[in-house]
Amino acid sequence: MSEIKKVVLAYSGGLDTSVILKWLQDVYQCEIVTFTADIGQGEELEPAREKAKKFGVKEIYIDDLREEFVRDFVFPMFRANTIYEGEYLLGTSIARPLIAKRLIEIARDTKADAISHGATGKGNDQVRFELGAYALNPDIKVIAPWREWDLLSREKLLAYAEQHGIPVEMKHKAGGSPYSMDANLLHISYEGRHLEDPAAEPEDDMWRWTVSPEKAPDQAEYLDVEYKYGDPVALNGKQLSAADLLAELNRIGGKHGIGRLDLVENRYVGMKARGCYETPGGTIMLKAHRAIESITLDREVAHLKDELMPRYASLIYNGYWWSPEREMLQTMINHSQVNVNGWVRVKLYKGNVTVVGRDSKTNSLFDPGIATFEDDQGAYNQADAAGFIKLNALRLRIAAKFKNKAK
Amino acid sequence: MSEIKKVVLAYSGGLDTSVILKWLQDVYQCEIVTFTADIGQGEELEPAREKAKKFGVKEIYIDDLREEFVRDFVFPMFRANTIYEGEYLLGTSIARPLIAKRLIEIARDTKADAISHGATGKGNDQVRFELGAYALNPDIKVIAPWREWDLLSREKLLAYAEQHGIPVEMKHKAGGSPYSMDANLLHISYEGRHLEDPAAEPEDDMWRWTVSPEKAPDQAEYLDVEYKYGDPVALNGKQLSAADLLAELNRIGGKHGIGRLDLVENRYVGMKARGCYETPGGTIMLKAHRAIESITLDREVAHLKDELMPRYASLIYNGYWWSPEREMLQTMINHSQVNVNGWVRVKLYKGNVTVVGRDSKTNSLFDPGIATFEDDQGAYNQADAAGFIKLNALRLRIAAKFKNKAK
Amino acid sequence: MSEIKKVVLAYSGGLDTSVILKWLQDVYQCEIVTFTADIGQGEELEPAREKAKKFGVKEIYIDDLREEFVRDFVFPMFRANTIYEGEYLLGTSIARPLIAKRLIEIARDTKADAISHGATGKGNDQVRFELGAYALNPDIKVIAPWREWDLLSREKLLAYAEQHGIPVEMKHKAGGSPYSMDANLLHISYEGRHLEDPAAEPEDDMWRWTVSPEKAPDQAEYLDVEYKYGDPVALNGKQLSAADLLAELNRIGGKHGIGRLDLVENRYVGMKARGCYETPGGTIMLKAHRAIESITLDREVAHLKDELMPRYASLIYNGYWWSPEREMLQTMINHSQVNVNGWVRVKLYKGNVTVVGRDSKTNSLFDPGIATFEDDQGAYNQADAAGFIKLNALRLRIAAKFKNKAK
Amino acid sequence: MSEIKKVVLAYSGGLDTSVILKWLQDVYQCEIVTFTADIGQGEELEPAREKAKKFGVKEIYIDDLREEFVRDFVFPMFRANTIYEGEYLLGTSIARPLIAKRLIEIARDTKADAISHGATGKGNDQVRFELGAYALNPDIKVIAPWREWDLLSREKLLAYAEQHGIPVEMKHKAGGSPYSMDANLLHISYEGRHLEDPAAEPEDDMWRWTVSPEKAPDQAEYLDVEYKYGDPVALNGKQLSAADLLAELNRIGGKHGIGRLDLVENRYVGMKARGCYETPGGTIMLKAHRAIESITLDREVAHLKDELMPRYASLIYNGYWWSPEREMLQTMINHSQVNVNGWVRVKLYKGNVTVVGRDSKTNSLFDPGIATFEDDQGAYNQADAAGFIKLNALRLRIAAKFKNKAK
Repeated sequence: MSEIKKVVLAYSGGLDTSVILKWLQDVYQCEIVTFTADIGQGEELEPAREKAKKFGVKEIYIDDLREEFVRDFVFPMFRANTIYEGEYLLGTSIARPLIAKRLIEIARDTKADAISHGATGKGNDQVRFELGAYALNPDIKVIAPWREWDLLSREKLLAYAEQHGIPVEMKHKAGGSPYSMDANLLHISYEGRHLEDPAAEPEDDMWRWTVSPEKAPDQAEYLDVEYKYGDPVALNGKQLSAADLLAELNRIGGKHGIGRLDLVENRYVGMKARGCYETPGGTIMLKAHRAIESITLDREVAHLKDELMPRYASLIYNGYWWSPEREMLQTMINHSQVNVNGWVRVKLYKGNVTVVGRDSKTNSLFDPGIATFEDDQGAYNQADAAGFIKLNALRLRIAAKFKNKAK
Repeated sequence: MSEIKKVVLAYSGGLDTSVILKWLQDVYQCEIVTFTADIGQGEELEPAREKAKKFGVKEIYIDDLREEFVRDFVFPMFRANTIYEGEYLLGTSIARPLIAKRLIEIARDTKADAISHGATGKGNDQVRFELGAYALNPDIKVIAPWREWDLLSREKLLAYAEQHGIPVEMKHKAGGSPYSMDANLLHISYEGRHLEDPAAEPEDDMWRWTVSPEKAPDQAEYLDVEYKYGDPVALNGKQLSAADLLAELNRIGGKHGIGRLDLVENRYVGMKARGCYETPGGTIMLKAHRAIESITLDREVAHLKDELMPRYASLIYNGYWWSPEREMLQTMINHSQVNVNGWVRVKLYKGNVTVVGRDSKTNSLFDPGIATFEDDQGAYNQADAAGFIKLNALRLRIAAKFKNKAK
Repeated sequence: MSEIKKVVLAYSGGLDTSVILKWLQDVYQCEIVTFTADIGQGEELEPAREKAKKFGVKEIYIDDLREEFVRDFVFPMFRANTIYEGEYLLGTSIARPLIAKRLIEIARDTKADAISHGATGKGNDQVRFELGAYALNPDIKVIAPWREWDLLSREKLLAYAEQHGIPVEMKHKAGGSPYSMDANLLHISYEGRHLEDPAAEPEDDMWRWTVSPEKAPDQAEYLDVEYKYGDPVALNGKQLSAADLLAELNRIGGKHGIGRLDLVENRYVGMKARGCYETPGGTIMLKAHRAIESITLDREVAHLKDELMPRYASLIYNGYWWSPEREMLQTMINHSQVNVNGWVRVKLYKGNVTVVGRDSKTNSLFDPGIATFEDDQGAYNQADAAGFIKLNALRLRIAAKFKNKAK
Repeated sequence: MSEIKKVVLAYSGGLDTSVILKWLQDVYQCEIVTFTADIGQGEELEPAREKAKKFGVKEIYIDDLREEFVRDFVFPMFRANTIYEGEYLLGTSIARPLIAKRLIEIARDTKADAISHGATGKGNDQVRFELGAYALNPDIKVIAPWREWDLLSREKLLAYAEQHGIPVEMKHKAGGSPYSMDANLLHISYEGRHLEDPAAEPEDDMWRWTVSPEKAPDQAEYLDVEYKYGDPVALNGKQLSAADLLAELNRIGGKHGIGRLDLVENRYVGMKARGCYETPGGTIMLKAHRAIESITLDREVAHLKDELMPRYASLIYNGYWWSPEREMLQTMINHSQVNVNGWVRVKLYKGNVTVVGRDSKTNSLFDPGIATFEDDQGAYNQADAAGFIKLNALRLRIAAKFKNKAK
C-alpha cells in the first residue's frame, strides 16, 4: 500500500467520494488529484472544487466534457441502434470509458501512479472504469475503496464521515438509503431501495427527468430530426451541436413523458439487478435513427448490423469500449452510416414516440416506381418471382422428395 | 397449362380471389377446391361458402384454425422475442405457413395436383405460400395468377369481374384503390394508397383495430400475464386458451391505443415497401415475455437468443417456417423456455405498455441477497471482482504494453 | 431480342464460348466485343484473338489481370481465413467479380448494352457474373445462352460447332464429356464425369497442378513467409509481387503434393454438387496466415473474425462480392490486419503444410514472461484467477442454488 | 482454512498431485479422498492406489470413464465439427467437465465439503474444473494449491517432495523441467520448455502418439467410417463401442503420422500460449464427419452450424460445458444430426487424411439427376435461374440506380 505516491480520484463532490478522498489520504498517505467532469449530470461542479480544497487537494481538474461525450461516445453507439437485453439504452455504460480516458490522461499529466473511483465491487462500473484504464495504461494502479475497506453499510459510511468532519446533508441522514443514482446527458438511473423487489412498481416520485405520461401535455408535438452520416444534426431545421441537440431532445422528451424504463438486467459480474432509467432523448433518437436507416440502408447491411448489435451492446455494457474488438466493430458500423442522411418526423405524445414520416433527398433507396400496387410499367417483372421461389425452394423440395422415398 | 386437373384455392370470398376462382376455371379448365380459414381476421366465412357454390365449386373447406394458429405458430415465434428489422412483429408472415400446410393437406385429401393463391408477384406472401407448399409436397404445382395474367391494374380487375358476373361491392368502385390489407388474430396490416409516400403520415381513419392514443381512456389499466414454458396462459388470473388469450389482449390493447406501427421494411424480393400495422396483443406479449425472461433466463442464454433472433425473424419473414434451419432454431428456443414460468404486471395507458413488476415462484434467478446495496452478509465477496477485472484486462494490458514498447 | 446492339462476351477461345460467339451473332444479330483475361489459368491467350478475328470480331480485349486478381481479390479474401463449408478455398468464386467488373468497364468503353458469359443455368458462376454486373451497372442487359438455347447436351453442342465451322479439337470428339474445369492463379477445379458419383474416388490422372503426395519428394522443404498488413509479401526473404508470390507458392506446393480437395458442396441455386480442387498456394497461405495472426491478433478480434467468416465466405461463394454487406465486412477485416506483420515458417512434405515457427518483431502479443511455466517474477498474480473464476461462476451457482431449492 | 473437513482430490499418482496430497494434509489438516480416472491417458492406475494408501488415504476412487468420456463428451463435441481458433481439437478441454462431474459426485457420496486439483493459476484447466464444479454444486469449496502455496518453481516443488518423503523419479531430477503434458483418449498435449519460444520448431522426440509423416508407411491405407446420428459407429464394417472406436482410430492415425499440431492459442485467462498436440483419431473424425454431413445435411443447417461453431468451441475451451448456453446449443446440434447417417471412405497416408468417397443409403440429399452436366430431362429448369438472379440483384440494382442519379 505504501507504494502509491499520487492518485487521481474521480470526484463528484458528494458524500461517497468525499469519504473516499479522506480515506485515501489516511490509508495510502498519498497525494490526491481530483477530477470532476461535467457530462451533463445537471449538478453544479464548483462546490466540488471548494470541497476538494478543504481536503488540501492541490491539483483539481474540472472539465466540461459534454460535447466530447455526446459526439464521440453517445452518437457512435446510437449508430448501431444499440440496446442491451432488448431494453436498456446503456446510459451509464457509455459514460464510463470517457471518465477512464480522462483519469489516465490526468494521471499522465500529473505524474500520478494510480487512479481511484467510487464504484462498488458488485457493479459493472468498476469493471468499465478499470478495463478502460488498463487498456489505456497497462501500468496504472487502481484503488477501488469499496473493494478494500470495511465501510460496507450506509451506517458505517456516515459514521466515518462524521468522525472525519465530512459534512453530511440532511437527506442522507433521514430515512433509509437513497436510490443509487447516476446521471449524464444520456440518462439518469435508479437502483436500490424499493427497487430491490422486482415484483413491486417503482414509486412515482422517484422519477426526476420525465413527467409521467399521465401528466404530459394533452397535445401531441411533432419533431423533425435531420441526420448526417448517421448522427442527428438538426431539430426542426435548427442545427445544433451534439450536446445541445441531446439536451434539447431530453427537454422535449421529458416534457412528453418519454423514455422511462423498469428493467431486471444481467450484470457482467454475474448477478441480476433491477434498475430504472429515464432516457428521453435517447428513446427518441433510437426510433428516429432506425427510421432514417429504413430508407437509406441496404437490407443486408441493416440485417448484419442487427445481428451484431447485441454483441456490440454487451461490449459496451461490460466495459470493453477501449478494446480492439469494439473498435473493429465500430469501423464497420461507421462505414455503414455514410449514406444515412435525411430527415425523420416523429410525433411525441404522452410517452409515445411514433415515426410518421421519413425521407432522404440524397440517399433514399425507396423506389416508389417498383413498390407500387399500381401499374409499374415494367419496372419489376413479376414472372421473375417464379424462378426466385423455385430455386430458393429447391433444397427443400429435394429433401422432401428423398424423405418421401425413405418412407 | 392443360395438365392441371384440380386446384386448391386459398379463397377469402373477396373480390380478388373470386376473380381468381373464375379465371382458374376459364384458363385452366380444371376443378376447383376452395379453402377458407378463420385465423381471426374477423370476417364472416359463410358468405365465402355461398359464393364458391355459385361458381359451381363442389369441394368447399372452411376451417376454424384460430387455436392452431396461435398455439403452434404465434406463441412459438414469440418465445424468441421475434422482431423483424427492429420493429415489425411479423403478423402476416406467421400466418402464411399455416395456410400453406392446410392447402397441401387439402390437396392430398382431395387428390388435387395444384394449389393457388391470390398473392402478387411483388410481395413476400407468394414466397411464403410457395416455399411452404414445396417443402411439404415437392411435387405440388403452384398457380400464382398475379404472376401469369394481364389483369395488373385495378381497372382491368374490375372490368374482368363485371364481365364475368362477379359482384363488386360499392367500396371497390368508388374512389381509388383501397389499402391492401391483411388481418388475423395477431395483427392487421395496411399497404398501398397514400402509404406509398413514406414521407407522409397515415390518415387517422385508416386504423381499424386500435383507437389512437389520444382517444384511449384517461385511466391506466393494470394487467397480469401468467407464463408457463414461455407462453402466456392466463390474464389477471384467468386461464385462457391460446386464441382466446390473444383475442383478449387485442381487445384490451386496442382499447388503450397500443400497437400501431408505421414502417418502411425490406421485402425478400428486393425492394423497400411501406406498411402500417396494428398488433395490440402482440405488442403487450413482447414486452411481457421479455420481462418474465429477465428474471428466469440465464444471461448467456438470453444473449444467445438475442443474437440469433434477427436471423430467426428473417427466416419467418422470408417464408422459411417449414425449413430445417427454422426447425433447428426452434428446438433451441423451445429448450430455453422450460424455466420461463411466472407472472408479469404491465400497465396500459394511451399507447404505452409499461412493465411494473415480475416474479416467478419456481424459476426466478433474481437473488436479492446478492444484488442488495445493503449488507449481504458475505454472499458476494467484493474482492473477487479485482481478480475478475485483472484477468479480463490482461490481454488489453499486454497489447498496451507492447504498443508502448513499439513506440 | 432485337433490342441488343452490342454485347461484350467473356471469351476464353475454347469450344463453348466459340459456339456462344457464333450463336450470339446469329440469334441476336448484334455486334460482339470479346474479352479474354489472363488470371493465371495457364493458357495462351493469343489464339483467342485469332479465333475472335475469324468470327469477324472487331473489338477484342485481352487483359493481363493477374496482379489485380491476387492483390485486390485473393489477398483480401485470405485476410479473413475464408473457407466455404469447412473445406473449399473459393478459387472459382473469387475470380468472377473481377471478370464481371471488366465486362462492365468494357461495355461502358465500347458503348455495349449487354454482356454475355458461358456459365450454365445450374451453377454458381452465372449468379456471380450477373450479380456483379447488375451491381456495377443496373441497366446492363445479360445474355446467358445456356439458359436460353436448346444445345443442352454435349452432342448438340458439337453438332452446332461442326455445322457452323467452329473447329473442334480431337479431345472433345473422343470419349465422353471432359471434366468441367476452371483455372486461375488460385486454383483449378474439376466437376462432372466420374465425379458425379460422390461415392467414387477421383481418378489419379485427373489432377493437373499437383503431384500426388506419394510422388512428392521424400525430402521436406522449409519455407518462410513474410506478412505485412495481413498479406504475404516475401518468400524466404525475397520480396515478390502479389501474383508472383502466389505463382511461386503454387509451384512449391504443387511439387509437394499440397492442396488437393474432394468435396460435396452446396450450390447457391439449391443443389449439392461434387467438385475436386487443387489449391496448392492457397492451402499454404491459409495455414501461414492463421499462424501469423495467432501471435499478432487480439483474442476477441480473432474470435469475432472466426464467427463472421462463414458468412463472409458465403457472400463470396454466392456472388455478392460487389454488395454493400461484403464491403462492410471487408472494412472490418482490413482494419483487423493492421498489426498482422511478421513471419511464419512452414514445413512442406508430401501433402502436409506444418507450421513450425512464427514471430513478429513489431507486433507480437505473445508474452513469454507471463506464459512461462518457470518463475514469472510477479508478472501474473495467480490469485487473480480465483476471483475471475468466482465471478464467472456466479450465475451458474445462483442457478444451481435455486434449482436445488426448487427440488 | 480450518473449515474444510474432507476434500476430494483429482489424483494422478504423479509427482505434482502427490505433493498436493501431502500439502493438503499438512495445511488443511483434513481428510483426503483421492479420485483417479482412466480416460484413456494410457497409464497404469493401480500405482496411484498404492501411493494414496501410503499417504493414509482411506477413500480411494479409481474409475474407468473411457466409454462415458467418448460417448457423452467427445462425440457430442464432434457433432459440431468443433475447432478452437481454426486448429485446436480441444482434447484437454473436453475431458475436464467429466472430471469435474465425478469430483462432485464423489464429494456427495463421501460427504466431502471441498474438491482440489493440480491445475495452475495461469491455465485454462483450473477454470474448467471449477466452473463445472460450481455449476454442479454451488456450495462446494475448491482448493487450488497452485494459487495458494509458494512452491512456484520446479526446484521448490522437488525440495518439498524430498523433504516429505515423496518419491521423485529420476526423470524429474535430471535436466530442466519436463514438458507439461496431458493425455486422454482424444489427444496428448505438450507445453513449456522449448515450446515457450514460438519461433522454434518442436524437437522431434517430443511427440509420443504419432510417428512423423516421414516415418509413416509408404503405403496408403483406406478406412471406411460408418456414421449413425452423427456419431461414428463402425470402422471397415466392424461395429465398435465409442471408446474402442476412438482407440482404434488413434492407432491407425498414429501409425500414419496423422494429427500433429503446433499452435499459439489464446487462453481464457488472457495470455497467449504455445502448445503442441497429437490428435490422430480426432483429426480423422473431423474430416469424416464433415464429409458425411456434406451429403446428408441441408445447406442452411450446415451453414448455421458453422457460424455457431466458434462460439460453441469457445464455451468448451473456456470451461462452460455445464452451462445452460452450452446445453442449449447442444440441443440444436443434436437435433441436426438425426439425418447424419451413412459412410465415408478416407485415405490415410503420411500425415494426410483425404476423403475419397461418401454415401448414405437412407439420408443422402445429393441428387445426381439434378446436378448432372448431362441432360437432366427437365428435373431442373435453367430458366428459373434468371428470375432467381434478377430478384437477388434487385436491391443492388436499385442502389446503383440511385447512386448514378446522385452523381
